[in-house]
Amino acid sequence: MSASLPGADRDRPHPQLNRHGELVHLLSTEGLPRSILQHVLDTARNFVSVSDREVKKVPLLRGKSVFNLFFENSTRTRTTFEIAATRLSADIINLDIARSSTSKGESLLDTIANLSAMAADIFVVRHSASGAPYLIARHVAPHVHVINAGDGRHAHPTQALLDMYTIQHYKGDFANLVVAIVGDVLHSRVARSDIHALRTLGCAELRVVGPKTLVPGDVAEMGVRVCHSLDEGLRGCDVVIMLRLQNERMNGALLPSSQEFFKTYGLTPDKLLLAKPDAIVMHPGPINRGVEIDSAVVEGRQSVILPQVTFGIAVRMAVMSIVAGNEA
Amino acid sequence: MSASLPGADRDRPHPQLNRHGELVHLLSTEGLPRSILQHVLDTARNFVSVSDREVKKVPLLRGKSVFNLFFENSTRTRTTFEIAATRLSADIINLDIARSSTSKGESLLDTIANLSAMAADIFVVRHSASGAPYLIARHVAPHVHVINAGDGRHAHPTQALLDMYTIQHYKGDFANLVVAIVGDVLHSRVARSDIHALRTLGCAELRVVGPKTLVPGDVAEMGVRVCHSLDEGLRGCDVVIMLRLQNERMNGALLPSSQEFFKTYGLTPDKLLLAKPDAIVMHPGPINRGVEIDSAVVEGRQSVILPQVTFGIAVRMAVMSIVAGNEA
Amino acid sequence: MSASLPGADRDRPHPQLNRHGELVHLLSTEGLPRSILQHVLDTARNFVSVSDREVKKVPLLRGKSVFNLFFENSTRTRTTFEIAATRLSADIINLDIARSSTSKGESLLDTIANLSAMAADIFVVRHSASGAPYLIARHVAPHVHVINAGDGRHAHPTQALLDMYTIQHYKGDFANLVVAIVGDVLHSRVARSDIHALRTLGCAELRVVGPKTLVPGDVAEMGVRVCHSLDEGLRGCDVVIMLRLQNERMNGALLPSSQEFFKTYGLTPDKLLLAKPDAIVMHPGPINRGVEIDSAVVEGRQSVILPQVTFGIAVRMAVMSIVAGNEA
Repeated sequence: MSASLPGADRDRPHPQLNRHGELVHLLSTEGLPRSILQHVLDTARNFVSVSDREVKKVPLLRGKSVFNLFFENSTRTRTTFEIAATRLSADIINLDIARSSTSKGESLLDTIANLSAMAADIFVVRHSASGAPYLIARHVAPHVHVINAGDGRHAHPTQALLDMYTIQHYKGDFANLVVAIVGDVLHSRVARSDIHALRTLGCAELRVVGPKTLVPGDVAEMGVRVCHSLDEGLRGCDVVIMLRLQNERMNGALLPSSQEFFKTYGLTPDKLLLAKPDAIVMHPGPINRGVEIDSAVVEGRQSVILPQVTFGIAVRMAVMSIVAGNEA
Repeated sequence: MSASLPGADRDRPHPQLNRHGELVHLLSTEGLPRSILQHVLDTARNFVSVSDREVKKVPLLRGKSVFNLFFENSTRTRTTFEIAATRLSADIINLDIARSSTSKGESLLDTIANLSAMAADIFVVRHSASGAPYLIARHVAPHVHVINAGDGRHAHPTQALLDMYTIQHYKGDFANLVVAIVGDVLHSRVARSDIHALRTLGCAELRVVGPKTLVPGDVAEMGVRVCHSLDEGLRGCDVVIMLRLQNERMNGALLPSSQEFFKTYGLTPDKLLLAKPDAIVMHPGPINRGVEIDSAVVEGRQSVILPQVTFGIAVRMAVMSIVAGNEA
Repeated sequence: MSASLPGADRDRPHPQLNRHGELVHLLSTEGLPRSILQHVLDTARNFVSVSDREVKKVPLLRGKSVFNLFFENSTRTRTTFEIAATRLSADIINLDIARSSTSKGESLLDTIANLSAMAADIFVVRHSASGAPYLIARHVAPHVHVINAGDGRHAHPTQALLDMYTIQHYKGDFANLVVAIVGDVLHSRVARSDIHALRTLGCAELRVVGPKTLVPGDVAEMGVRVCHSLDEGLRGCDVVIMLRLQNERMNGALLPSSQEFFKTYGLTPDKLLLAKPDAIVMHPGPINRGVEIDSAVVEGRQSVILPQVTFGIAVRMAVMSIVAGNEA
């Protein structure tokens, strides 16, 4: 009689795709075929114009229920999903999970089963524990689609997809591009998701740049070039992706100080001259001006940080409309 | 000149019904005639299918304003009302009352008068003080309908109505049913509202089961059979309603420990064998696994805990649409 | 390549008007021509009836995105803007700014640039710092309109406009009116905005009434009559605007006690007899009964406190629809 059993683990061959190879959950850019990534980018292109219209809405998800499940607070990311869902005409339920029944001792999976029973269509999940969205996707009722909005240090696939959209928008094909990811790679789920996406999309050369303490040991195995010198990392590159220095995540002394970091790895107009003259500068935000990036670069002609935000809405609209259209 | 006077007490013969005997506020299942309860259940039946549709919306409350006034926090219950209102196409305003002007020293009735003046249609009220929704209903402007979403230890009528819907769905007529309500009856507004509804709907035998410390003395006067033995309570029953052990409400030592409670009153698969083979198991959630109920029962074939949640949306849609259609 | 530069200050001749003299931001009633104020009031008149309709909505802002940016918490004011936007069919995004990226060290202007890039149409801004909405309006992308929902002790223009609407509704022309503003003028952005609006609309006589410690020294220069006696202030007036005693704002001992204040400046039925017999009594809320105003006055026949709230929705609808229709 019971609808969906928290105990029953629906193992499928691929955690994100159905048996037709279609996207039903977006959990990570890792393991997704190039065709799926490209399909998201192509779909997003159609949605970019929606935000410019007089009436910024399409009726694609009318009457669908999107639940924002932010176990870790992030007003900014939650807002982008809320706007994306609203522009698809979906109904949004924002759950302040930190104050809800999980604090009454209910398990994550019971919370999820309960919300599924309210006829949810999409769960947008942010969680401080790596893998939580996978756990949820494995146990969720078949009519629910899960989108990972950032889990621990693991993945942030919609950020990576909007980064890919931005690169493709300004640079076209990935085949000839040199991309540098600079900064606190160790703590960055954005970096990890970007690396997987860039490799799948055929990026010619991928560099990660940072001090030894902030570049994980296994990153070289991911087929990237590790540079501990910013000059080496930037030289001749087409795209610079700066990472936020995750002050709030650092325990202990991985770094001498943020001023010290800026001196060695901060992106200044001078340093940027090492990259190609038409190189673009990206950042997932929020920015620490004067820590990982100089204000003059943020506001300079090569910065595409605000267009990233704009494209992010379209990319999230694309992901939601794609998964909602595919049956588990 | 003033619109609605907080000082003026509109005494009417029945706090929940207008002079035609129609439901204008839902405050309690106590005192409601059987025809009203049955009307809610019949209306809910039509709404169950709405949540299965491609477009999960009907335009019944389009342009109506529903205010969620949760003076006591409950993300789960608030969410069910938000979804129900959304699927009726109403506009929802969630008020974080704990942080609002009540903390600036404004009285409850001034807050209510103020919100009424914004042309509200429905107030969904959760309050830790028993009777608060009655107070509000007595003073509210005539165009506003009040729905009690749980007040103190007093009543939780929409939970009771969804319980009735669930029982009727699986068991049909109430006339031949034996229903057992098990656990912390003392602190449970759900138990109280269930008892009133079950008696009005003509339930054949109604038992409350729990230790003396958690069964209120006056409950026998409500026409129920009090059982202090779980075996006696479960034997031959058709419906088992398990109550949440309200840890957070207990002051002092009404219980030796939650493990001790589980040993004596926890519902295990073995104990459930005492009930009829086709008995259903219900729980208002959130569940304390291993405290009042065993995981194997939660996930077992007799559990209807998740269908309760699903029916809860339809029942709340029914209540909102009914009260909004009746004039004070 | 970057869209809107936080560093670039778009200086325009008038902070609130475009080069055609049309309202593009509402930051203050100060400096707005009478024609603009009157246009808001006239537009609001058309919206008053919307809240009385069966379907309380007009499609004027369908597909527009209104962001509620409350850097200072105010559930009540936020709610009125949320309802106004909803009744114009806009999409509302409520940002819990206190918990968002400003706390991650991001600057105000970076937050604003980021939200603008999500294709916002209107920012409703509440901030504890006087002038913050001006700063935002100066740096915001051209497609965004800013509405000040209260900044520090500076201005609260929508409250002033709803006060003007209320006065005009009950009293007609401003030309013959005597208006008294009573109480804590020093801390009141409402008083400041009311004074500017009343003077622009041609109010015959404007009095501010309060103890020396709560009436700012420069107020006499604004063309108002300062009265330190309540009797003198009330005598023969047509409109009494009572101010909330901002207990939470007072540092140190500007007042002996709130009981003392009530004895000298509290509005009682007896004192009100000094005003004209048909004088109206207004209050921006929330009310401190027995501190600045007696309960009998709040609920008396001259009180228009609740109609103020009702008109406030229509006035906010008017302001939003006007600014959204004018190009920067």
